[in-house]
Amino acid sequence: MYKNFSFTVLKCAGLKRVGVIRTPHGEIQTPAFIFCGTKASVKGISPDQLRAVGTQIVLSNTYHLSVFPGSDYIRERGGLHKFMGWNGPLLTDSGGFQIFSLGHGSVADEIKGKRNATSTLEKITEDGAYFRSYWDGKIQLLTPERSIQLQRAFGVDFVVSFDECTPFHGDKAYTEHAMERSHRWETRSLEEFKREDDDSQALYGIVQGGVYPDLRHRSAQFVNENDFFATAIGGTLGSSKAQMYEVVDMALDTLRKDRPIHLLGIGCIGDIFAGVEKGIDTFDCVHPTRIARHGGALVKPNARDSYEREHINLKRSQYADDDRPIEEDCDCPCCRQFSRAYLHYLLKANELLALSAITLHNIRFMNRLMEDVRLGIMEGNWQQVKDKWM
Amino acid sequence: MYKNFSFTVLKCAGLKRVGVIRTPHGEIQTPAFIFCGTKASVKGISPDQLRAVGTQIVLSNTYHLSVFPGSDYIRERGGLHKFMGWNGPLLTDSGGFQIFSLGHGSVADEIKGKRNATSTLEKITEDGAYFRSYWDGKIQLLTPERSIQLQRAFGVDFVVSFDECTPFHGDKAYTEHAMERSHRWETRSLEEFKREDDDSQALYGIVQGGVYPDLRHRSAQFVNENDFFATAIGGTLGSSKAQMYEVVDMALDTLRKDRPIHLLGIGCIGDIFAGVEKGIDTFDCVHPTRIARHGGALVKPNARDSYEREHINLKRSQYADDDRPIEEDCDCPCCRQFSRAYLHYLLKANELLALSAITLHNIRFMNRLMEDVRLGIMEGNWQQVKDKWM
Repeated sequence: MYKNFSFTVLKCAGLKRVGVIRTPHGEIQTPAFIFCGTKASVKGISPDQLRAVGTQIVLSNTYHLSVFPGSDYIRERGGLHKFMGWNGPLLTDSGGFQIFSLGHGSVADEIKGKRNATSTLEKITEDGAYFRSYWDGKIQLLTPERSIQLQRAFGVDFVVSFDECTPFHGDKAYTEHAMERSHRWETRSLEEFKREDDDSQALYGIVQGGVYPDLRHRSAQFVNENDFFATAIGGTLGSSKAQMYEVVDMALDTLRKDRPIHLLGIGCIGDIFAGVEKGIDTFDCVHPTRIARHGGALVKPNARDSYEREHINLKRSQYADDDRPIEEDCDCPCCRQFSRAYLHYLLKANELLALSAITLHNIRFMNRLMEDVRLGIMEGNWQQVKDKWM
Repeated sequence: MYKNFSFTVLKCAGLKRVGVIRTPHGEIQTPAFIFCGTKASVKGISPDQLRAVGTQIVLSNTYHLSVFPGSDYIRERGGLHKFMGWNGPLLTDSGGFQIFSLGHGSVADEIKGKRNATSTLEKITEDGAYFRSYWDGKIQLLTPERSIQLQRAFGVDFVVSFDECTPFHGDKAYTEHAMERSHRWETRSLEEFKREDDDSQALYGIVQGGVYPDLRHRSAQFVNENDFFATAIGGTLGSSKAQMYEVVDMALDTLRKDRPIHLLGIGCIGDIFAGVEKGIDTFDCVHPTRIARHGGALVKPNARDSYEREHINLKRSQYADDDRPIEEDCDCPCCRQFSRAYLHYLLKANELLALSAITLHNIRFMNRLMEDVRLGIMEGNWQQVKDKWM
């Protein structure tokens, strides 16, 4: 298993570390950020553009892809890499997050991309999760085996075990019950994965356990003891930043360190620094690409217009006569070509170019951030890097 | 006048010719196609992408830009080149086309880009054209002087004289009356242009006269005898292809040949070959970029799915399992990265990337077409080039 994959830690500094993940589709220098190409496309950005701004790995969503265009279809097209024209590393999630987040009513806007989000979680059994498809209203069952089969059909490098993403408002009894079922589901995921393993893919285990230290500990032990290539920290991370950091600590205290560790769904700059300081290797979040489509451009602290936000809102009238690029020191195609004033105008005029231009900036921003994070660890000037970005 | 501009004919073959137009923002090899960036942006495509697929010159619309963001605003931003990040040659129209086409009720979809097209032509006087703005409903007056002032504020390389774009359904008496008024407007345009000329811009005269040979002849003589840098053939070109070719012939019979000759609003492949054979140097049309946003990809004859059309409609289900690029022999980023099946999927999934990818292909297609047209004239294998593209 995993003979075409490896993870090598190149340098540690405290809990922080720089490493490299090798995959059949190339290397990922860690810490790294994974960009969301939910429906087999990072919205408005082509693979050559992704490459040009330093992107290493893209994530796509099993739930969306399985609904349309379907896993058999993507397999017939030669797999997701070939279909979407991205020949770098790819990861898919298990498909569970969308179903459970809808059922639990917390992250419904995740699937805003297509029609109205009318999918609902119908029931959870030992088998898996029954849900009503947002596409055609039919009741469907997603099981661990089905999730792995879907991800195998996509042919992505990184496959994620099927688990229940428990909500914050679940009590400890529910969270424990769900966690134990998730472990059984992850075991079934692993068995299904091994059944047809051809060394082209690697499987992530997921740590659940909500906000409860003993559950997180037990879940991390479960993941440690099974043949996963890497680990993701999932489920609710609490209701505040402080609690999120605590929950991440709970998992990391127990997790083995010879595998890459991913923090699911986290993408704010402050959280990335906090995560790296705790030993996280990879992050993903729709945030950088989503805010771009609403005029939000990520900037370092000296350029922000609000203490609360890590981005500026280019729709605001103050940018109408701002002839500077989003960031003076940015080497992205957007900053090399366009002023804030022009981007403001494009947004007001509903011109398509605004969306792709700001998205490209935000991707470049995140990739430069991660480059600096790696350099800061390698060269021992962590605090300087942190001061620059936070 | 025009000392930073020149037009040199490099080779003639019959009426066909290859030339080069020199401008302060670079050269244009002719015959050339001018792409529409109506609102200071070729929809979804950045200037570096335009360059990468061989684009030489972009057109923007005075009417749209003057309504929003306004000419003073663009002047304050350093002019249209700097504002939109395109440092190659730029042309603006006079603004008249949108007003008259709305008034005459023929080409209302030209301004579909922003809100509902509720502008209306109120009346035409010797002064100019009164119209109700689609933006705020106010009555505004566009005069030759105002048109030139707007285009001066934009700072584009090529400025177009203000004329009345007469409709096909105008009778000869109206067409003659309008043509004579257009000549007076063009004279006023030229006077206004000369008043502040700083050698940074060059002015186009427009040949009117509808479908009437004697009027086209008189209008061409008018343009010949005045200090325009170049000539555009405007107004109605008739109700059929045959009549369009006749009308173009009427103008070209009289037009002097030492100036570049532009055919306004024509962009089908067949018409480009016919135009070049009559001596046209440049063309513009929204067609290649507009159809792209509706899934229409330009292809050479061997790849078409209908005799009537020069493009394939990638929304059609037949492309769902077509793993070939739009064109096997195309070197554009779209064809190098994506299959027809993927583009079909992106269109069905409402993914932004479809629009920019197909637009890039169509731009590259038109630029390759014009490259081949120039080569065909230079190397004397015109018929082979024609057979390849038609």
